[in-house]
Amino acid sequence: MKRIAIDMDEVITHFSTSCLELFNKEFDENYTTEDLQGKLLVELDARFADTVDSYLANDSFFLDLKVIKDSQNVIQKLSSYYEIYIVTAAMEFPASLAPKYQWLKQHFSFLDDKKFVFCGDKSIIHADYLIDDTPSHLDTFSGQGILFTAPHNRDITGYTRLNNWQEVAAYFLNL
Amino acid sequence: MKRIAIDMDEVITHFSTSCLELFNKEFDENYTTEDLQGKLLVELDARFADTVDSYLANDSFFLDLKVIKDSQNVIQKLSSYYEIYIVTAAMEFPASLAPKYQWLKQHFSFLDDKKFVFCGDKSIIHADYLIDDTPSHLDTFSGQGILFTAPHNRDITGYTRLNNWQEVAAYFLNL
Repeated sequence: MKRIAIDMDEVITHFSTSCLELFNKEFDENYTTEDLQGKLLVELDARFADTVDSYLANDSFFLDLKVIKDSQNVIQKLSSYYEIYIVTAAMEFPASLAPKYQWLKQHFSFLDDKKFVFCGDKSIIHADYLIDDTPSHLDTFSGQGILFTAPHNRDITGYTRLNNWQEVAAYFLNL
Repeated sequence: MKRIAIDMDEVITHFSTSCLELFNKEFDENYTTEDLQGKLLVELDARFADTVDSYLANDSFFLDLKVIKDSQNVIQKLSSYYEIYIVTAAMEFPASLAPKYQWLKQHFSFLDDKKFVFCGDKSIIHADYLIDDTPSHLDTFSGQGILFTAPHNRDITGYTRLNNWQEVAAYFLNL
């Protein structure tokens, strides 16, 4: 059985959307996901550099993240044909470790928690595929990297790109 | 640069020693590491099955673990010649995630936390070597597994075995 490693933030969780909501509330702004096209949060507004860490320091930030459309049912289907690992870069925010685990148990309860991996550098991952929104993780991965479309990576080329979970299903299940 | 993945419990931390100390206190026993030779905790005394989880549920259990002799200076030397990853099975006790991270930052501050990996199944690890006290982790690892001697694995054969950190230094640094 081939093995697919799947990132969390921006792939199965609406990470930047939550950051925008908190930022808008704090600074009385009205940024939307549309404003983030082709940009990282800090490129949209430099004040994010000083504020994001404070949002992430709160357990409820991770616990409240919304699930990306179709990720649950597509991953459940994939798990009949592939070994599924959830692989998230969590070491930059160690306080996220426990809430990320709880979030996965809540929203992806059908997955085996022995296949959750919290790491930093994803070159350590031994899998056939990695679905990730961050090009630098795909660059060091030893298998086939797949760029999952997120607002910030819209203009990046040179990767196999899948835009949403229906496209992931079609790619892996030959639909 | 070749890559060495290193387990935590019983390889760089005195995990079972701490369990014995807490158990002896709770049940007025006098078990020592010598009693654990060739046995898991639960094989030494069936009451461990009901008590170990309560010890681990306390953050201070992980924070207070003692460092195994010579592991710090040998790993520091190895890190000049090899990429060092710390790879620990933490998903069975999610409450251990944050304190394990803190322990590593405290006792192995020279290591890059982007190279800490908290996982379940270690077959996901892409490295040249894995130093681990648990044979089942070595069995599914794709690189060269090395059994680090711990009381419970004393009688197990069929693996490349290193008994202490001086032997690890000799093996990897051709001393």
